[in-house]
Amino acid sequence: MESGPPGGSGPAEPGPRLRGWRGADAAASASSLSRFGAEAGCRAPAVAAVLPAGGSGERMGVPTPKQFCPILERPLISYTLQALERVSWIKDIVVAVTRENMETMKGIIQRYQHKRISLVEAGVTRHRSIFNGLKVLAEDQPSRRLSKPEVVIIHDAVRPFVEEDVLLKVVTAAQEHGASGAIRPLVSTVISPSADSCLDHSLERARHRASEMPQAFLFDVIYEAYQQCSDYDLEFGTECLHLALKYSHIKAKLVEGSPDLWKVTYKRDLYAAESIIKERISQQVCIIMDTKEDEEHVGRYLEEMLKTELNHVKVISGQDLQQIILEQCYSFVCVNVMTSDFEETQRLLNMLEESNLSILYPVVVISVHFLDYESVPFGQKMEKVMQVREFAKEAKKRNILLSGLLIYFPQEEQKLRESLRQGATIIAALIKERNSGLIGQLLVA
Amino acid sequence: MESGPPGGSGPAEPGPRLRGWRGADAAASASSLSRFGAEAGCRAPAVAAVLPAGGSGERMGVPTPKQFCPILERPLISYTLQALERVSWIKDIVVAVTRENMETMKGIIQRYQHKRISLVEAGVTRHRSIFNGLKVLAEDQPSRRLSKPEVVIIHDAVRPFVEEDVLLKVVTAAQEHGASGAIRPLVSTVISPSADSCLDHSLERARHRASEMPQAFLFDVIYEAYQQCSDYDLEFGTECLHLALKYSHIKAKLVEGSPDLWKVTYKRDLYAAESIIKERISQQVCIIMDTKEDEEHVGRYLEEMLKTELNHVKVISGQDLQQIILEQCYSFVCVNVMTSDFEETQRLLNMLEESNLSILYPVVVISVHFLDYESVPFGQKMEKVMQVREFAKEAKKRNILLSGLLIYFPQEEQKLRESLRQGATIIAALIKERNSGLIGQLLVA
Repeated sequence: MESGPPGGSGPAEPGPRLRGWRGADAAASASSLSRFGAEAGCRAPAVAAVLPAGGSGERMGVPTPKQFCPILERPLISYTLQALERVSWIKDIVVAVTRENMETMKGIIQRYQHKRISLVEAGVTRHRSIFNGLKVLAEDQPSRRLSKPEVVIIHDAVRPFVEEDVLLKVVTAAQEHGASGAIRPLVSTVISPSADSCLDHSLERARHRASEMPQAFLFDVIYEAYQQCSDYDLEFGTECLHLALKYSHIKAKLVEGSPDLWKVTYKRDLYAAESIIKERISQQVCIIMDTKEDEEHVGRYLEEMLKTELNHVKVISGQDLQQIILEQCYSFVCVNVMTSDFEETQRLLNMLEESNLSILYPVVVISVHFLDYESVPFGQKMEKVMQVREFAKEAKKRNILLSGLLIYFPQEEQKLRESLRQGATIIAALIKERNSGLIGQLLVA
Repeated sequence: MESGPPGGSGPAEPGPRLRGWRGADAAASASSLSRFGAEAGCRAPAVAAVLPAGGSGERMGVPTPKQFCPILERPLISYTLQALERVSWIKDIVVAVTRENMETMKGIIQRYQHKRISLVEAGVTRHRSIFNGLKVLAEDQPSRRLSKPEVVIIHDAVRPFVEEDVLLKVVTAAQEHGASGAIRPLVSTVISPSADSCLDHSLERARHRASEMPQAFLFDVIYEAYQQCSDYDLEFGTECLHLALKYSHIKAKLVEGSPDLWKVTYKRDLYAAESIIKERISQQVCIIMDTKEDEEHVGRYLEEMLKTELNHVKVISGQDLQQIILEQCYSFVCVNVMTSDFEETQRLLNMLEESNLSILYPVVVISVHFLDYESVPFGQKMEKVMQVREFAKEAKKRNILLSGLLIYFPQEEQKLRESLRQGATIIAALIKERNSGLIGQLLVA
């Protein structure tokens, strides 16, 4: 919904938004971009994307269309938009939604601060929605914010895990061949039934592929195909590569995609998507301590235990919190060794609030405190640390999931390590589940 | 691994294990069985199942073959065996596993108490594994426990959600047509690439189907097909329906299956399977109270809140615990209104232990206690209820996940309802996540 400057439609020179392609701004970001651009030896084209998102999701067996189904409380389509937005050289993203979902979609764009999105009304079928998207891109007028791209990507709103890598591959291939699409090996054998529901023949699995998304086309190739295609195609067809072949006589280049390209189709796919997202945002845990170098052995032990418990997880120490937040770490363990109050935790919460980090994902914060039975009575300590409930209520409003963890601190090292190990198990569980039902709890290790 | 009595190989009369088919024991169990048997007008055939489970799981991207990947700490294949075992009219289940996994498989059968399973060594390909399974069934000798069935089901070890309904459909269709298989609509368009990885043509999606499992065959039909088929088929083929067509000239009857038949192929499928299983075993929550009729209003409130919080979940009161355990409820809320100790919870834990309920799934038990700030100091009460940690450690050994929940009990009804509502949220989170990292915790609402 951003009103950017009007871009040029010509294929000649890469604009400032097309970083990374050969000949583009040398300060280009992603190395993959430069690499692929160089390999393909292509100039950077003007690229737009069209996302048909008018589906009703009847296969899901839920009333909400699947693109709007929540994953960690955020609609699926927002994850897909995020995946496309990350790619700086995609200039415009046109989303086709039904009239009744237009306001919902505007709300999503605003709430999750999506950029470079234009909305267009969906048609009654997938092909009609895509055609509507192409039409607004074709109307190249200086007064309009959208301009006709050289290459257009067509992607599904319900394939949230698309990577820049495959987007670049299909765009590069489309530049050269006119059309391109991602494919995957077949999981099941495909068969052709006879009229009486008996097996007529089965297809050789090795000779066929599943056609997935994204696909990319020279804009003129696919737009002309849509202009020429029949009503039957628009009503019953689903495959853009087929239209490019039938009407523009272009044999699309096929690109092997990763398993991540799968389409969220059934309810089980929503479950899978949620688990994948949870896993991704839990890959990095930041430990923050309030102690000085020579006193922090407890924190070090805990860090060690966490590294064992959270297999494959990068555990980092929070020296430069600002930087860590910038690098999008969504899990924090805040160790209050010196103080029994929430000074360190409070400082972190304030920084998180300023950062807007929790707009896209729930951030887990675990406030760790230590309990020495001998010096402070258990009940007294507990009551004090129970303040975490009030902090948690406030934090929840900003999508931060705060819990407290009280770790028993015996003098004997062996016992201490056991406490810390148990603490690490609890921390791992809280980070993994990211369940807002457990916020404000004081867990005890 | 059970050594049952030698069964007859003939197709004539149903044995005592073939309940539910028309003409079979009138004390038949599942109503679906009698219904379908009656509809199809078939006699009950002798049925066995073959499960190829020799795969290496390279698509999963994990070192463990996917059929042995744990879901809630139990290997995937055990869920599939459970699904087949539930069907009383499947007499024998032959599983083909590689030599190196033979001991693992024996361990699984013993630990999860699987019945009617025979093991056979897998071949190097799927077809060779199935052939090995068929061979042991074909060798019909009085001294052996296995006997040649009339109909054989072929299913995948990695499709754990197969229902009796579809098994019956394919078996009935196989009796009539000689071969039958479950199919599903295609999710993606299928295309045929040319040698240079360009699109040659795309297949019309509506005219094709994905061939899924289970499939069923008249034993002689599929066994003859395997005996005749070429080495090339055995090495590179995957589709049994194709062999039946090519070598036995049988056009398999195709049966529409449910989405549940999907094959666990990628890591995301394991995530999906885990979520589905968690959801299934959380569909029913049993509330147990230690109070008499006229005193139990707090429990009733909590029950109400739980019904709201756990949408679609059947909340039942534990009048007849023995019966509820028999009906396989895996989530218990044990309300200790009268006592602050764990009498009621302890009684439940003892019954669960006797029942073996937790062999297959982790059972969640939440021990609820109430806190009246005015009568007992918070810390004192906490310390008492913290005993839950010791109980939880013991229970964990039997796959029971015990947590404590302390609910604040104010005099004012409005505040009480708020406490109970929060308690219900916490209970819902614990039941949903079923995470063993949080056992022994005392949560506070």
